[in-house]
Amino acid sequence: MSYAFDSAIAVRRTADGVYGAEVHDGWDIMGNANGGYAMALIAHAMRAECERPDPITITLHYLAPLPPGPVTITAEVVKRGRRFSTVRASLQHGGRTAIVALAAFGDLSASGHAPVHVELSPPTLPPFDECPARGDGAEPFGLIRRLDMRLHPDDTGFATGTPSGNSRVRGWFAFADGRPLDSLAVLLAADAFPPPVLNLPGVMGWVPTIELTVHLRAVAAPGPLRCVFESSVVQGDTCVEDGELWDSSGVCVAQVRQIGLMPN
Amino acid sequence: MSYAFDSAIAVRRTADGVYGAEVHDGWDIMGNANGGYAMALIAHAMRAECERPDPITITLHYLAPLPPGPVTITAEVVKRGRRFSTVRASLQHGGRTAIVALAAFGDLSASGHAPVHVELSPPTLPPFDECPARGDGAEPFGLIRRLDMRLHPDDTGFATGTPSGNSRVRGWFAFADGRPLDSLAVLLAADAFPPPVLNLPGVMGWVPTIELTVHLRAVAAPGPLRCVFESSVVQGDTCVEDGELWDSSGVCVAQVRQIGLMPN
Repeated sequence: MSYAFDSAIAVRRTADGVYGAEVHDGWDIMGNANGGYAMALIAHAMRAECERPDPITITLHYLAPLPPGPVTITAEVVKRGRRFSTVRASLQHGGRTAIVALAAFGDLSASGHAPVHVELSPPTLPPFDECPARGDGAEPFGLIRRLDMRLHPDDTGFATGTPSGNSRVRGWFAFADGRPLDSLAVLLAADAFPPPVLNLPGVMGWVPTIELTVHLRAVAAPGPLRCVFESSVVQGDTCVEDGELWDSSGVCVAQVRQIGLMPN
Repeated sequence: MSYAFDSAIAVRRTADGVYGAEVHDGWDIMGNANGGYAMALIAHAMRAECERPDPITITLHYLAPLPPGPVTITAEVVKRGRRFSTVRASLQHGGRTAIVALAAFGDLSASGHAPVHVELSPPTLPPFDECPARGDGAEPFGLIRRLDMRLHPDDTGFATGTPSGNSRVRGWFAFADGRPLDSLAVLLAADAFPPPVLNLPGVMGWVPTIELTVHLRAVAAPGPLRCVFESSVVQGDTCVEDGELWDSSGVCVAQVRQIGLMPN
């Protein structure tokens, strides 16, 4: 079975540390590549370069909008250690740098994910089929059609001009075509939900990500992810957004943080 | 007045994008530079290179221990935008790369820090003078002597073999010599406290930082910082640690997250 996500994140090595790729149409927000899709794409090249499977920690800075089309990714292994490989990368589009990245890759299946001390719990959500699909009540766009995202009914107000007042968005994440969720898919999920600040009164518009960091904590068990995103400190012209992604067995598979620019 | 921290983070430009510096003795944990000190040092060179004052978001990967001695920092402005400059950097010690960094610099005083939506509050701490100094009951080491850190009395158990059972450390942060707290000092504070996982039963030893990201949210008002650090998901062989730093006026000046390796 071939899945759309695998085509969309395909990379081919063209020289030492240089990868050609194509930003696919249909993984966008209003015409530009979604930040999680861009992270999965660049991580795919970084993974190929370091030959370790999982980004234990990965940080991207987004410098320019990224429309569909050919891109070049350069990736350099700065250090290959016993457990981790540190890799830096950049993505060029149309002659300019659109993304810079820094990551440490390791092997989650080797390190295990036995909980030592876990104070958090997965978000409480109605069953998958009882949550409205993202796109209900909102104009559907590229990325939404690729995914089977379901939002907590209490958190959909942003889409209809009735924000909940809580800077929070919870929901389920899966692919529309049923693709299993590996590490790269979890990176996509890390930035697929609408910004929680849109559920604050009077906040509308585009919340561009300045920087996004994902910590992968475990290999995901099969099934949709339970996700929660919150912005607890919205201050000045920036918001920090925290997310947690949990698998069907109740294990935390990723912690996510980004800083974004508030809409004017 | 000249302060020890300013000497310790001094950098001199030796060529385009190249800075010489000296890792000073006495800002260490058991002989190696503290991660926050190293962050302030490399940020100082990055700031000089981009000529913008504040790291709005800065990420470091720590590849090797960093003993005192001469280092070379290379810094490159990847993009100079209207509000932010994106800078990447690396620090070489003894011919090898010890740190790689990625940051976006801006101007916190220009963007302001009016709270839009702040759900968190500063940690409740006994008054500064009623909190025990870090080092009480523990072997004092380099960094501790440079600082006037006070820990919440409930959180000091790690130092005496009676961990609290809560993966949390709260306390006050100030310099021993009274240096004011600017952006670079806040980076130091971001990694100056003992790892909260040491307050879990049976966890002892060294918790090396793999990656540390600091988001600066406001210019700090004068006075010591109120700080709280917690590890809510300790799983497999890694822990993620979250911190918040608050100033004397009750404003959140920084949010901090790192991933570290659990002691064996």
